[in-house]
Amino acid sequence: MSENNFNLQKIADLLDGKINGDEKQEVKSLLPLDLAGKEDISFFYNKKFIDKLKTTKAKAVILEKEFEDLFHSNSIVVKDAHIAYAKLTQIFKDQIKKVGVNPSAVVESKNIDPSSYIGPNVIIEEGAVVGKNVKILGGVFVGSETKIEDDTLIYPNVSLYSKTKIGKKCIIHSNSVLGSDGLGFANKDDKWEKIEHLGIVNIKDEVEIGAGCTIDKSSTGETLINSGVKLDNQVHIAHNCVIGENSIIGAKTAIAGTTIVGKRCKIGGGCGIIDNIEICDDVTVTPMSFVTKSISSEGMYSGGSMLMEHKNWLKYSAKLNREIKK
Amino acid sequence: MSENNFNLQKIADLLDGKINGDEKQEVKSLLPLDLAGKEDISFFYNKKFIDKLKTTKAKAVILEKEFEDLFHSNSIVVKDAHIAYAKLTQIFKDQIKKVGVNPSAVVESKNIDPSSYIGPNVIIEEGAVVGKNVKILGGVFVGSETKIEDDTLIYPNVSLYSKTKIGKKCIIHSNSVLGSDGLGFANKDDKWEKIEHLGIVNIKDEVEIGAGCTIDKSSTGETLINSGVKLDNQVHIAHNCVIGENSIIGAKTAIAGTTIVGKRCKIGGGCGIIDNIEICDDVTVTPMSFVTKSISSEGMYSGGSMLMEHKNWLKYSAKLNREIKK
Amino acid sequence: MSENNFNLQKIADLLDGKINGDEKQEVKSLLPLDLAGKEDISFFYNKKFIDKLKTTKAKAVILEKEFEDLFHSNSIVVKDAHIAYAKLTQIFKDQIKKVGVNPSAVVESKNIDPSSYIGPNVIIEEGAVVGKNVKILGGVFVGSETKIEDDTLIYPNVSLYSKTKIGKKCIIHSNSVLGSDGLGFANKDDKWEKIEHLGIVNIKDEVEIGAGCTIDKSSTGETLINSGVKLDNQVHIAHNCVIGENSIIGAKTAIAGTTIVGKRCKIGGGCGIIDNIEICDDVTVTPMSFVTKSISSEGMYSGGSMLMEHKNWLKYSAKLNREIKK
Repeated sequence: MSENNFNLQKIADLLDGKINGDEKQEVKSLLPLDLAGKEDISFFYNKKFIDKLKTTKAKAVILEKEFEDLFHSNSIVVKDAHIAYAKLTQIFKDQIKKVGVNPSAVVESKNIDPSSYIGPNVIIEEGAVVGKNVKILGGVFVGSETKIEDDTLIYPNVSLYSKTKIGKKCIIHSNSVLGSDGLGFANKDDKWEKIEHLGIVNIKDEVEIGAGCTIDKSSTGETLINSGVKLDNQVHIAHNCVIGENSIIGAKTAIAGTTIVGKRCKIGGGCGIIDNIEICDDVTVTPMSFVTKSISSEGMYSGGSMLMEHKNWLKYSAKLNREIKK
Repeated sequence: MSENNFNLQKIADLLDGKINGDEKQEVKSLLPLDLAGKEDISFFYNKKFIDKLKTTKAKAVILEKEFEDLFHSNSIVVKDAHIAYAKLTQIFKDQIKKVGVNPSAVVESKNIDPSSYIGPNVIIEEGAVVGKNVKILGGVFVGSETKIEDDTLIYPNVSLYSKTKIGKKCIIHSNSVLGSDGLGFANKDDKWEKIEHLGIVNIKDEVEIGAGCTIDKSSTGETLINSGVKLDNQVHIAHNCVIGENSIIGAKTAIAGTTIVGKRCKIGGGCGIIDNIEICDDVTVTPMSFVTKSISSEGMYSGGSMLMEHKNWLKYSAKLNREIKK
Repeated sequence: MSENNFNLQKIADLLDGKINGDEKQEVKSLLPLDLAGKEDISFFYNKKFIDKLKTTKAKAVILEKEFEDLFHSNSIVVKDAHIAYAKLTQIFKDQIKKVGVNPSAVVESKNIDPSSYIGPNVIIEEGAVVGKNVKILGGVFVGSETKIEDDTLIYPNVSLYSKTKIGKKCIIHSNSVLGSDGLGFANKDDKWEKIEHLGIVNIKDEVEIGAGCTIDKSSTGETLINSGVKLDNQVHIAHNCVIGENSIIGAKTAIAGTTIVGKRCKIGGGCGIIDNIEICDDVTVTPMSFVTKSISSEGMYSGGSMLMEHKNWLKYSAKLNREIKK
């Protein structure tokens, strides 16, 4: 957590909140109600923890108006305490303040904005473009003609193939890969003739990509991740897919080639979505589901299996086995 | 796409095709029928797009004989348009022409063929052998005594443990790992005693490995990926497995230890295959299946769950729950 | 395998075993019964292979007392042959003997014990601490204030975010990521406001983490992997999780946020475990299961689907489809 203290007035200004108590008080860390001590600020947005609100030792708490009487020390009253909590975490986050090119980086491109940070052992091939206030941490590979726009943050050991486009204010976590070839082959006499992928990956603004993700380039044109999309870790997006604005996808979900996911979808973790289908806007798919056909009505869909005691699973499997042989 | 133009005669020669029209015409890019413009070449192999063939603005199209009357500008008539399309993508693919060892690379081995390219920050430990026309891109780690044969391409940030063997004309995509230890432990008083893996990973010729894959070395002997195998992204192959020639495995499939997969198998994405079983040649497994026993007859097998509206899934789960408690 | 030969007396001493035969004999390699030749030592712990014990050409075999009459050349009689085999693999394993900092490494920290090895192109940011006999192989990123304790081994291209804690005698395989942000967002007008993660990842002693794993830091406090835990490849552990001592988790399993797994659990590969649940000690979950609720009794649980011929799967799906529409 940050080494700097923050006074409540400053925090209230940033959260657009109203202070009950002493606005000159300073807080050191942001912690949950039960862990916060006398130097800390905490947050209350989940009614489940109302008892913790009453007993917390925090110096200050952010909360909504209807709860302000429940906490008698300093409080900052906000309109939406969950959103205010998110903004508060951003205040307390350690910022990477480094600027400039580490001497160990191998930079062939001349298009690096001087406000950006290029960390140790980063490789930036010819023709790549790095915008303003970009942070590229150690060991990242930026292929030729790749373009990274302003305020984007790329964590260590990410691999960006040539001609990848990354928008503004994106975050890409470590060891993710953007621009690898899709699985495309033509079968000839039981051997596989490679179909080269001539397209690119295009990531729009404010996209966050978790650690260990893979996004394949398209065969022609682009694999498109629209603005505001958030991917958890180890997600796989195949060639030619389009993911709609502000959709969120859980860890380890895989989406096969040329599938289109709409806007504001929430896809749980561990799902598999087949190729060449279309999922409309505002669809929720619960975790571990297998999506085998297009979805054209918004709503919630499921398919994950049920957990049972192993002895029951054996009985159930045996019964199913008899049934399918009828 | 390539900056070079290609004339139709050259393309026809490479595809072993016959030209209808002007063989001196040049084309700039390879694009699908609906995206191709007056400077481009396109392709037709899927009858679903026959209307697009009739209306495309492409300067030239590759197609099979029975369709040559449907397109009245320049065409190249080929025997198998899907295979010809694959070869055409290879023509238009940007080739990596770099040769030599980047000064930032750390090369302890003396066995690097001078025709090969060793990119920035690549590490090649002692005793490793790199054949002719190999391309090893930035940040790759090549462990001691690893051997990489001619014409193989390794993308950035791949990790190859010591003594790994990689054949000719292979492609390994970014951030994949070959040669990590298998999950092997002996249980003693509820603690795990490590079984060290003393074997290797052996990749034969013309194998393609997607991004973010992991292939464990064997306990003794070798984990063997035979010639012509194609793995999609984030595939996991455990210690001692053998994958037969020309089999193809979809994204995120995991194969547990000592399992043998036959030749020409097609395993869908998201599958789990247990340890110590054998799958015979010419087996297809559809995506998201769980393979719990050996398969000894060729054919298609499935096990993925069905997607339903969430309310139906709740009803179904409740019913199943009652049944298994009977 | 090691270039050194070992004599049987030395091996017997290390395994706390008793020699039948000539204790001065030397062996070169450790191989299974059917592959071992006249220079090799082998092992017998699985009765399934009793015929191989009778016909092996090995110079020596480790086995338990009740089987000593079945092999008439040199044998080392041990109490538990599986544990002895594990220890024997450790003897034959090539050790990394390198010490010191490779000149290509970028080391900002002053807290590197001189007994440790820092490989080529490793990056160690300011304030990081590296204990005794640590081996950090090529291309690893160690973020600021990360702490790595004695005798830990980190394979190439691992990414450790700032403030990660790693205990003694751990092994972390290539391209794993520790400390990435959890998937945490507050929803505001259909957009996602980022919740910054202010906590850390804390890995205790003797933990092994496979290749391509991702472990997210906690929102506050720590994501905790207790001593003796073993993770296979491509496992995902989300923010705030706690994994109990000596639990083992198979490849590709994902555990969602704030879930607690007990001690000595065995979670199969390909499982999904939802967020905010608790699994008690001594639970086994078979592979490809979906764990949707807390488990409070020890035992074995299952949920993976059944494999069937594709034609039967179609029939079964159609029937299920009719049923859920009733």
